[in-house]
Amino acid sequence: MFFEGAEKKLEIIVGPTVANLRQQDISFWTALVRHANADILSSLKNDHCDAYLLSESSLFVWDDRILILTCGSSALINSARYFIENVTDIAFLSYQRKNEYHAQLQYSTFAEDIAQLRRLIPGKAFRVGHLDTHHQYFFCSEGDYRAQSQDNTVELLMYHIRGELAEYLNSEEQSQGEICARLKLDTLFPGFVFDVHLFEPYGFSMNGLWGKYYITLHITPQIGQIYACSYVSFETNLNLSRYPQAVLGYLLNLFSPVSWDLIGFNHSIEVQGAPEHLCLGRCSLMTEQGYDIYFGHYQQLQAEVLIPELM
Amino acid sequence: MFFEGAEKKLEIIVGPTVANLRQQDISFWTALVRHANADILSSLKNDHCDAYLLSESSLFVWDDRILILTCGSSALINSARYFIENVTDIAFLSYQRKNEYHAQLQYSTFAEDIAQLRRLIPGKAFRVGHLDTHHQYFFCSEGDYRAQSQDNTVELLMYHIRGELAEYLNSEEQSQGEICARLKLDTLFPGFVFDVHLFEPYGFSMNGLWGKYYITLHITPQIGQIYACSYVSFETNLNLSRYPQAVLGYLLNLFSPVSWDLIGFNHSIEVQGAPEHLCLGRCSLMTEQGYDIYFGHYQQLQAEVLIPELM
Repeated sequence: MFFEGAEKKLEIIVGPTVANLRQQDISFWTALVRHANADILSSLKNDHCDAYLLSESSLFVWDDRILILTCGSSALINSARYFIENVTDIAFLSYQRKNEYHAQLQYSTFAEDIAQLRRLIPGKAFRVGHLDTHHQYFFCSEGDYRAQSQDNTVELLMYHIRGELAEYLNSEEQSQGEICARLKLDTLFPGFVFDVHLFEPYGFSMNGLWGKYYITLHITPQIGQIYACSYVSFETNLNLSRYPQAVLGYLLNLFSPVSWDLIGFNHSIEVQGAPEHLCLGRCSLMTEQGYDIYFGHYQQLQAEVLIPELM
Repeated sequence: MFFEGAEKKLEIIVGPTVANLRQQDISFWTALVRHANADILSSLKNDHCDAYLLSESSLFVWDDRILILTCGSSALINSARYFIENVTDIAFLSYQRKNEYHAQLQYSTFAEDIAQLRRLIPGKAFRVGHLDTHHQYFFCSEGDYRAQSQDNTVELLMYHIRGELAEYLNSEEQSQGEICARLKLDTLFPGFVFDVHLFEPYGFSMNGLWGKYYITLHITPQIGQIYACSYVSFETNLNLSRYPQAVLGYLLNLFSPVSWDLIGFNHSIEVQGAPEHLCLGRCSLMTEQGYDIYFGHYQQLQAEVLIPELM
């Protein structure tokens, strides 16, 4: 029953010699995600972006770039190799892994992944955060590419969710419609079109599109005795610091996680309305391509009463 | 250069049919520690206890019980099997593992260890603490044994040490005598006799005895860019809540760790004079044998500025 929610993330921007990526046949994307041991469940398209909901998270395709997130024990590194080998003009590639609950169940380590990547494309890699708590691994390709000023993303990763919604997401009678209503998707993200999937017996995934903007939310809700490894991720390329809704604060109150991480790429991190918390660690660093990467690890400001887990 | 400081811990109390354990030949103890891939470096004896300093931590032998701590990638589970198979009358056994920085480099997982133990002795096992942060695994044998009221121990585990002593312990010119002086062993533990060892190029171990009381301190000091996985452990069967020196507060100020754990067996946890901190999580539980086990995870109350580690 254990499912690893934490995603691996691959973003690739192609060079000018590559035709519009959205004209690639669906068989290419099916093969791409199969290399990571994932399948396409459904899709959503608008004039800017094709968004695929996967059995393990999400794939977004724009004219000149892709973003793919895969969770579980997926082998995203194999999708990266497949893409690089088939679409040879790569302007920029970034590959990211979060610390997993059960790293020993993964297909490969980050160190093994970047050894493979470096045979195909030069790049710098680093870890932010200590090994004994939340940490993130980043690989960024080297080269002449320069980040565009509007190219900003923010990731909110929530661990050990609690409260009413957490209980509901672990219940038998949950429904897709009710989850969407509780998430207030229409209020938080007016104008967006959504594609949602409720997994059996637990798990919820959502992609949303509005012009060139995406949101994606993935919930691994398992709480309780043995598999208390709940995880929720939210990510968007909206500039939330200029957005009318206090999205991050709303989600933090809704899921009430014990701890959370915020990661920004060229995105200032201001969280309004979050539960009272402490920043345990933070880091800002600038890549050669002009990406200002922020990582912060937060915890609610009260001692958690830990429940022993029988083994 | 990476060295895993976190220890595995085995405590065994033998039944009345077993002759005084201290009369066992040294070849038995040499073989016992060899099963964990450790060697005896030196020893210290008094009327109550024989204390051995090991290449990987410590072994203490009393008339009716042993305590062995081994760090690195030692296979303490094999020592446990060797002891049980040779000294068959076991009144009580507890086996404990702390979360490691690099769990994938270990000889075995805790789950594998307890599967082996359960072939020899029935017991209950549990984990305290979430997998994505500090956590502890405990195995306690089942049976009629009842904890003695004076059988109390406390463990202080410190992660990511900082400050003057941390710098000194990473320097070229360190000496055993100067480390002992900076630790103020004679002031903190009057009456104790000490056995210390300075490892090449880094690392310090100390056992101390005073009557039936032991102290043991192990320092894995590596700070800096790549192997920033420093770890210090202190453990004693002194009842520190009735002890004149504020030992835990002194050690916490001296090593200034980013985070620390406190584990008590029938030992109330009051830390006087610690740096300003937050308790992130805590747990108290009572075993069938009457051991009141406390686990608490603490962090200094300031956001740490994280340094990216190049890979």
